[in-house]
Amino acid sequence: MHTSTFLLNAGAAQLTRRLQSRDIQATTVVHACLERIAEREPALQAWTHVAADAALARARALDDSPIQGLLHGLPLGIKDIFDTWDMPTGYGSPIYAGHQPAADAASVALCREAGAVLLGKTVTTEFATFQAGPTRNPHNQAHTPGGSSSGSCAAVAASMVPLAFGSQTAASIIRPAAYCGVVGYKPSFGAIGRAGVKGLSDSLDTIGAIGREVEDVALLAACLSGNQRLLDLSFHHAPRVGLCRTAAWDSVAAETKATMAMVPAALEKAGATVVDVELPAGFASLPQAHIDIMAYEAARTLSDERLRHGQQLSAGLRGVIERGLQMPHAEYVAQLQLAAWARAQLPAIFENVDVLLAPSAAGEAPLFEEGTGDPQYCRAWTLLGLPCVHLPFARGPHGLPVGLQAVGKLHADHATLAAAAWLLPRLRQA
Amino acid sequence: MHTSTFLLNAGAAQLTRRLQSRDIQATTVVHACLERIAEREPALQAWTHVAADAALARARALDDSPIQGLLHGLPLGIKDIFDTWDMPTGYGSPIYAGHQPAADAASVALCREAGAVLLGKTVTTEFATFQAGPTRNPHNQAHTPGGSSSGSCAAVAASMVPLAFGSQTAASIIRPAAYCGVVGYKPSFGAIGRAGVKGLSDSLDTIGAIGREVEDVALLAACLSGNQRLLDLSFHHAPRVGLCRTAAWDSVAAETKATMAMVPAALEKAGATVVDVELPAGFASLPQAHIDIMAYEAARTLSDERLRHGQQLSAGLRGVIERGLQMPHAEYVAQLQLAAWARAQLPAIFENVDVLLAPSAAGEAPLFEEGTGDPQYCRAWTLLGLPCVHLPFARGPHGLPVGLQAVGKLHADHATLAAAAWLLPRLRQA
Repeated sequence: MHTSTFLLNAGAAQLTRRLQSRDIQATTVVHACLERIAEREPALQAWTHVAADAALARARALDDSPIQGLLHGLPLGIKDIFDTWDMPTGYGSPIYAGHQPAADAASVALCREAGAVLLGKTVTTEFATFQAGPTRNPHNQAHTPGGSSSGSCAAVAASMVPLAFGSQTAASIIRPAAYCGVVGYKPSFGAIGRAGVKGLSDSLDTIGAIGREVEDVALLAACLSGNQRLLDLSFHHAPRVGLCRTAAWDSVAAETKATMAMVPAALEKAGATVVDVELPAGFASLPQAHIDIMAYEAARTLSDERLRHGQQLSAGLRGVIERGLQMPHAEYVAQLQLAAWARAQLPAIFENVDVLLAPSAAGEAPLFEEGTGDPQYCRAWTLLGLPCVHLPFARGPHGLPVGLQAVGKLHADHATLAAAAWLLPRLRQA
Repeated sequence: MHTSTFLLNAGAAQLTRRLQSRDIQATTVVHACLERIAEREPALQAWTHVAADAALARARALDDSPIQGLLHGLPLGIKDIFDTWDMPTGYGSPIYAGHQPAADAASVALCREAGAVLLGKTVTTEFATFQAGPTRNPHNQAHTPGGSSSGSCAAVAASMVPLAFGSQTAASIIRPAAYCGVVGYKPSFGAIGRAGVKGLSDSLDTIGAIGREVEDVALLAACLSGNQRLLDLSFHHAPRVGLCRTAAWDSVAAETKATMAMVPAALEKAGATVVDVELPAGFASLPQAHIDIMAYEAARTLSDERLRHGQQLSAGLRGVIERGLQMPHAEYVAQLQLAAWARAQLPAIFENVDVLLAPSAAGEAPLFEEGTGDPQYCRAWTLLGLPCVHLPFARGPHGLPVGLQAVGKLHADHATLAAAAWLLPRLRQA
């Protein structure tokens, strides 16, 4: 394969192996990314800041130094809700335009230590909520990339960077990954420390990764969590898969129904067990519980912004905050209790399956003007804290990416990623 | 009672009632606090910053405005790991000397909105860990006030401020409250949002309050959590109390044994039921599980500080970080699983009691030179996420304060505080 084509299509893990063996140079990889950014960024607007000079200087230093760690020489995109001591961090809000944090987020610092080259900051929606930034979908610029990890997903999909940080409070990794056709991974709640990442909801906020392949997002999670097992995703039996249409099935688009319909034949041919999994009736109330808990907590989390800069919040976010402030505490507690009840049902749901396959989004990316898409397909999984991996493997009627998310057992991130890594190539071949 | 004596001895809730009725002026209360600070601060060193002018200006404005909220006119001490947009915030570390955050912590902003007067920032140990600040115990300056909420507990104990923020990752509210003879409240894990508070461990960090009476700490928690029930702590039956000596009983000092021994007679006389509660044998391993989980997470949380400012970390903290980085992920996960097992035992433990009474610390405050004291008596309760309230009601052989902590059911913060409010005056009379 021609070097530049390889550089643009290789996943982060594959690149890292060649960087570690000095088969390619960090400088070469960074140059390829910067050239691609120069070409695609004017139309896509995935970045709030590209640190071209700093990234090249860092790449040169890494090429002249011993291997630093797991990410040696790998360019990384940082969602702009992660603090960086050497790059402005705006949290997607005019309130923080030009804001320069004093320190790196813990996860950013760990990536630097592992040898990553920070290429720049990627566009987030306003405080990782709903109000879109300028980013366009790389597959069709008339469409949204989804949110809130809009820039990270668009940048990876457009080969501007092989790996990027995302974060999810509702659907902010899985949905934009689906719209952009990349792998998105939301770990189990609590797996990765959140220090230095602008928060929205203490009970829900989760740091994750966007890449081309499952092994790429696992690589980043291994660096951040210290879980070295994530570096080997070999799966020793064909996975048992539960098709989980969820209570929102009636609302999904035809392309999602078609995608789900092709799964059993494709996977059974490869040796997997595929069964239908029905969720307990009470699970249908989880998306609303998620909405309420997120509003209650976000309303308090963004207190300084509401009180000192309220006019610079979008009307939509002000509405969520107002609703959260007016919600009785007892209602919030009742929704937390519903979530606790649902978590207690999970062992039975996962008794005979390794992962569930469920919709990541309604279908293809909506038009840009229609907003960043409906997060309802992710709300329950996020509320339950389960590990989720978006698998991009199909196309919809407009040629835009479609896929499904693999949802695993709580804290079984290795098994979930290993199953996802087994499934993705087989689904792509279907 | 003479006004100035009243002002110095009244609890925050009592003061607030008189401020709300305009019976006293905010300016008068703030002046009394500032006079007391002028008198006591040179010896005690509880504050990193006293915002005298700003506090007086704010008090004058509040005296001239309608009642703002639950904390109208009440002076508040802010532990210096809580960000404040108008006061430097040093996190107890030379790395952040003079650091000026861009925004208030969410909890600080909510207090401003409720009408509080921010009197200043109180001393914390280094990143709320072990390395002591300069603060002395108000009861005897040769002794430690405990940590990490050293300044908040000393300031409340010395009547420099009626109410202050604390935070607890191991024992950082309950232990200094015990050493200083004030009420300390660590809420259930997750009850109060942590945005803008310097983190140490995502699984453990908890925001709480230091005051003179149980209703004082409940008042602050009501403002922050939105749980209005906390404003009425009336208890409709005499509480059922479990005496819980824990596996660490052999290590407590004679004064703690004597304090526990006086409880049954004092409470039974008042109508409470008192029983002994034995914890399952596996609970003896929880303090070590807490140590490991805290080290594993803190080591990653403080990555930026370790990588860019390692020489400015104390040797003790560097040691904890090193241990956390070397700990295998599987060991960390096993300790989290032990904690999950223990949480599943709690319903049986609390089946017949409203609260447990357990040691808050070994005994009286150690000498200043000996450090901030042993946190082992709080580690398990913090790891389990249970609400804890230190009840100060006795004295040890050196005349220093002694007491016990009331530990309640998970998320039963109202019941725990109500039981504590019932118990404290009866224990004080014993």
